[in-house]
Formats: sequence, C-alpha cells, structure tokens
Amino acid sequence: MNEFDLIRQYFETPSVNRADVPLGIGDDCALVQPKPGFQLAITTDTMVDGIHFDSRLSPADIGHKLLAVNLSDLAAMGAEPCWISLATTLPEVNEHWLAGFSEGLFALAREFDVSLIGGDVTRGALTLSITAQGQVAAGKALTRSGANVGDLIYVSGHLGDAALALNHSQITQLPKDQQQQLEQRLFRPSPRVSLGQALVGYATACIDLSDGLSVDLGHLLKRSGKGASLMLDQVPTSSIARNLLGHEQAAKLAFSGGDDYELCFTVPAHHQEAIETISTDAETPVTLIGQVTSDSGLKLRFNDVPVNWKSQGFMHFYDQDQ
Amino acid sequence: MNEFDLIRQYFETPSVNRADVPLGIGDDCALVQPKPGFQLAITTDTMVDGIHFDSRLSPADIGHKLLAVNLSDLAAMGAEPCWISLATTLPEVNEHWLAGFSEGLFALAREFDVSLIGGDVTRGALTLSITAQGQVAAGKALTRSGANVGDLIYVSGHLGDAALALNHSQITQLPKDQQQQLEQRLFRPSPRVSLGQALVGYATACIDLSDGLSVDLGHLLKRSGKGASLMLDQVPTSSIARNLLGHEQAAKLAFSGGDDYELCFTVPAHHQEAIETISTDAETPVTLIGQVTSDSGLKLRFNDVPVNWKSQGFMHFYDQDQ
Repeated sequence: MNEFDLIRQYFETPSVNRADVPLGIGDDCALVQPKPGFQLAITTDTMVDGIHFDSRLSPADIGHKLLAVNLSDLAAMGAEPCWISLATTLPEVNEHWLAGFSEGLFALAREFDVSLIGGDVTRGALTLSITAQGQVAAGKALTRSGANVGDLIYVSGHLGDAALALNHSQITQLPKDQQQQLEQRLFRPSPRVSLGQALVGYATACIDLSDGLSVDLGHLLKRSGKGASLMLDQVPTSSIARNLLGHEQAAKLAFSGGDDYELCFTVPAHHQEAIETISTDAETPVTLIGQVTSDSGLKLRFNDVPVNWKSQGFMHFYDQDQ
Repeated sequence: MNEFDLIRQYFETPSVNRADVPLGIGDDCALVQPKPGFQLAITTDTMVDGIHFDSRLSPADIGHKLLAVNLSDLAAMGAEPCWISLATTLPEVNEHWLAGFSEGLFALAREFDVSLIGGDVTRGALTLSITAQGQVAAGKALTRSGANVGDLIYVSGHLGDAALALNHSQITQLPKDQQQQLEQRLFRPSPRVSLGQALVGYATACIDLSDGLSVDLGHLLKRSGKGASLMLDQVPTSSIARNLLGHEQAAKLAFSGGDDYELCFTVPAHHQEAIETISTDAETPVTLIGQVTSDSGLKLRFNDVPVNWKSQGFMHFYDQDQ
C-alpha cells in the first residue's frame, strides 16, 4: 500500500453522508449545497503539537479536540454544523496515529452529522487545522456584539476543570477516577451545539470560552460596548475542584482558566424562564452569573464582597482566534 | 504594540469588502451570504517551509503563491472565488515577514475580489494553509469525471517552466532576465480563474495542473473512466525552455513537471470554435494536445512517433490534494 492509499483509507471514506454534499473528497474542490435563506458561519482552528496538546493526549483525543474546538465556535453563533475541511501536516505516515486520530475525529463528526469534504495532507511538523462551516438562518446568528444593559449573563456547564487538569502536578494527589474526570474535560471537550442553536432568538450575544471566562467575556463586552457586574461565587465549578481547592480558589480558576469550551451568553431578563426550558431541552445546565451594565469594565463580587481578581487569561499571539 | 495588535494590523483590516460578508474577522465565526441557486466549491491547500517553498521565495511570493494555488483549484471547477480562511503557524512574530506575506496575499486577493474572512494564528513551524470558497451555479461545476470519448484535450498557457526553475542549477547559465521569467512561473503562478469560469457549459471535465500534466491528466481520465491519445510535440512550452533544452526535452519536462497551475480540460469537438473565442476573451492561450479515447491509459506520440515517456510526477504523500 503506498502513501496515497494509506491516507485515502483513513480520510476519504465518508464517515457521514449528507444529502447537501453533491461532490466530496476526490476532485479539485468539494461541492456543497447551502440551504436557501441561510447564511454560512465559518471558523478555523489550528492545533500544534507541544502548544495545544501534549503527550498525555492520545491520537483519538487530538482528533476529538480538534473538531470539538471548531464546533464550539459554530455553537457560539447558533449555527448547525455541516461541513469540515482538514489540513493535516504530519512528520511521517504513522498508521497507528492516523487510525486513532481519524477514529476520534469521525466519532464526533458522526455525533453531529458533520461531513469531512476535503483538505490537504502535507509533510512537516505536526500541525492540524480545521475550517468548519455551519448554517444559520439569515440575520439570526448569535454574535458577540448584541448585549444590552440589564441583560442577564449565563454560562453553560461548569468551568475550571480543564485549567486544573492542564498542570498535571496539581491533580496527582487525587484518586485516579477524579484525575480522569478532570482530564476528560481538557482532552475531550463537549461542544454545546444544541444549546447554541436553541439560544437563537433568545440570546442577545454569545461567545465560546476558549481563553477563559475573564478574557472571553471581556471580548463580548468590548464588542457590545458594555460592562458587567459578576457574582463570582455563582460561577459553576465541579465538586472535585471545590473539594481540592476550596470554593474561592475554584471560582478563581473558573474565572481565569481556559479550554472550557462552554458558552457564555446574554439574555434579556424577560427570557429567564425560557432559558431554563431551553437548558432542560438541550440537556445542558446553565447558570446565571451576572448582569450587563452600561459602565465598561467588570465589577466583580464574591459572596457579595467586591474583589479584584486579575485576569490571568491566555494572552499569547498564538491563540488569537478569528 | 502587543502581539494581538500586530497580527490584527496585518490581517484584520479588510483588503476587500464584499457585500456578501455580513460579518468578517473578529467574532467566533465569520458569516457569509451565498447566492440563491448556487453551490459552494471548497478547497484547502497547505504550504510548508522547506517542502513547498525555499529561501528564494520572498514573503510576498509565499503569500501570492499560497492564495494562487487555492484559486487555481476554484478555477478548475469553474467557480467564482469569494472567501478565504487563513491558518498561519509561525515560529515567531516577525513584522517584516508579516508585512511581505500579507502584501503578496492581499494584492492577489484584490485582483480577484476575494475576502479574507477569518482564520487562526498559532506558534509553531512555519505552516500556511488556506481554505478557499467559490460559488458556481448548481449542477454546473466542472469536475474531473465528465470526459467523453472523442473529446478534445486542451491545456492553458505553457508548461514546464516552473519545473525548470525548481532546480536552480539548471538555469544558472541563462541571462538574468530569462532566469527571472522562469522563476516568476514558479514563485508567482497565475490562477486561470477567468478561463475556468468561461469554460462552464463547454468543458466536460477540468483539472488544474499542480503535480504535472502526466499525473493530473491521469487523475482526470481515471475519474472519467477513459484514456487519451496525446501529441506531445504540441504541448506548449516557452521559447526559453526550448532554446535551453531543445523541443523534445522541453516537452518531456512539460509532460512530467509540476507547479504549472494551468488548466487541462476536455471539450466536445463541436465546441472547438467556441473554445477559441473563450480563450481570446479570457486573454489566456489554450492549446489542443490530444483526444479522449475509450481505452484506458495514455497513448503518447512525439512528431507522430509513438514514445514511452515514463511519468515522473510528484508522487509523495505530502502533495495529495483533496
């Protein structure tokens, strides 16, 4: 089997057949058929060996996470995920790696009915990039810029476990099953696709949490021209993190850590009940953590006491999305 | 100026404003509005330092070529180029490099009214990937699979100069201006976008020549389930190549070399006159080089004598497009 055949075996067999892909892998371009009245949401995320993942991640974890971080961006726009293109730069053709990577990638692709329509395979330092496309009704996408004064601020799931797991030495004292629970949050994030789509028509602004709540909520507020008042004791954390660190340190990590891939969104107060129903239907917990204010900047309180927790967000040039 | 600002300065200022991009760089996703009744053609090409370019290429050449090879794939489908996403992995933030690269990229983007809508910037070994999107009327795209027995086979422009320039020692004896002419063909390919779009409705199959005529025409014939008879003395070459190598060696290089980014396409014989008009209107010369046959395989003749030139195409795993 030559190298072409090997690559073909892992990537060219369609794992998901969508009716809106008249031509998939194997020509100069793929062809896809968008839905009338919809816009395309398009995002690109790259992962580099040693920067975005370390040797603890299996090839399947890497495949999962690469797709998950892209789907998380589509979720933040309220878009339905549809098609992905994969740029894979590999130091060598390693069948074990290809098998694991494609298994992790395609398992998540099947879960969300996403079709791999093309890409490129090149030789070089391990660098993996996906451009993902979703569809959302024209004019209905959630953006970062629509938050209004008085809107309630929510986050999905719980925050901080991925940041805790990032530094392995922090969690070595925990029982094995708790270590694994935390590492799953870092290695295998769950993109909040159903929640994002359900928020269309309710949320006024939305962002996914990749660089940490403090940084990403900052982006949303800056684009909206607003500020926020946050009750940091309300930021949802896991019982593992609270037991290990205590409530306040767990909340600090939840505020400043990255890699959560949860959604942070703003909602007019009169939609509070609707959000609870949406959360139940999407099987994704959401928690009210604060309110949008007219003053720029963040007003932080923990147990009703003002605090001044500095952002420790992930501010490197190599993690600047979009 | 921090690293975010620097990247922003070079990539986030839109060089092309398209009315069909309601939301560009700066949110979780970009939003674009496809035309009703059209399909999207999507392609990804990656360039890796040391594999796809060497130190002879300036940062501006690299920016030009990265976009050109992607637009060439859109041209081969007959699509109108619209939007691109750029994944840039850089070893460091080098302002000189960023300025040159973006200048080369955006100059070509302006020429074809293509809008950079998003991407990702990461740190790592220099790896550059574009996913490009074009639009083509539904059901009208040119593919590799439609060639019929008796169709005429054409190529655009002339072939072999890029392959000649690839090996610098081959051309050192030439006058400087001739060396530069050859190198321009390698460093600054011209995607045949106007020709590709004009061929819609006339060509039965089309492919762009990246790996060399022998390999790429082979792909087209395989997907069409056909063979071909070629008059290799008719394959267009430059006078520089013919003077340096002689007619036969120049034709051999044109047949087997890569990196031409010309189009090879098949046309029913009754469209021969229309093709001449299209060529004139698109200001792109085209040359008849053979005919599609029912027997699989290539029948090669040079000056009416059968020849058996082995393909020396670029058959590495790292150059497997789509």
